[in-house]
Amino acid sequence: MEIDFGKSGGLVPAIVQDERTGEVLMLGFMSELSFQETRRTGEVVFFSRSRNKLWKKGESSGHLLTVRDIRVDCDADALLIQVKPIGPGVCHEGYRSCFFRSLDPDGEWRVNAKRTFAPEDIYRAPAPRGEGT
Amino acid sequence: MEIDFGKSGGLVPAIVQDERTGEVLMLGFMSELSFQETRRTGEVVFFSRSRNKLWKKGESSGHLLTVRDIRVDCDADALLIQVKPIGPGVCHEGYRSCFFRSLDPDGEWRVNAKRTFAPEDIYRAPAPRGEGT
Repeated sequence: MEIDFGKSGGLVPAIVQDERTGEVLMLGFMSELSFQETRRTGEVVFFSRSRNKLWKKGESSGHLLTVRDIRVDCDADALLIQVKPIGPGVCHEGYRSCFFRSLDPDGEWRVNAKRTFAPEDIYRAPAPRGEGT
Repeated sequence: MEIDFGKSGGLVPAIVQDERTGEVLMLGFMSELSFQETRRTGEVVFFSRSRNKLWKKGESSGHLLTVRDIRVDCDADALLIQVKPIGPGVCHEGYRSCFFRSLDPDGEWRVNAKRTFAPEDIYRAPAPRGEGT
């Protein structure tokens, strides 16, 4: 069974879930190369659509995602990566999960979680481990 | 905050998660209209990329997905729908989740779950509720 990278221009959506809590942390996209790098390194590597290059999650923040299990769906066009998250959160806005807003019945998005870190402390600080920003 | 439907040709990925167990059940895509229909009906309505039309999940199987919460990510370009699934599973191959294969260290995909229903009993039977197939 081969992942169907062709369906969406070479990228498949990859859901990241905390293996321990079941919380969905974020969704990114993987190219074939980023998938290979994820397997090789044991840490999640996406393909950044905005920067058009490989993006090791946590390379600037230190909040890496250690891979515990990789799942594929029945059509082989979506991935579910179960991880052990390193650090207090994956979201650049300071939350554990990027999905920190829920829809109210009146159509407004409300914040459903508390900040777990201050983004300005992480993203303005010198990059950890010398990995660059 | 508006969902960014423009980023990927009018569609955003929508993760479906069982509200009770935390299990990720499937990933589909939503157009703006399918999102509106999901809100209006309280049941998950995707946009089918292969059939190029709205697709109410469970319209042929009866395995509808009742919406409990709708979340959006920080970039407003991915959705997380928490649901109460109706029926024994969402996957047309007979599993509770479409993510029923995990990657082995040797690179093979192995089935990680047991079938919860026989697809041939569901998809060959007359459509429930007169909704058509």
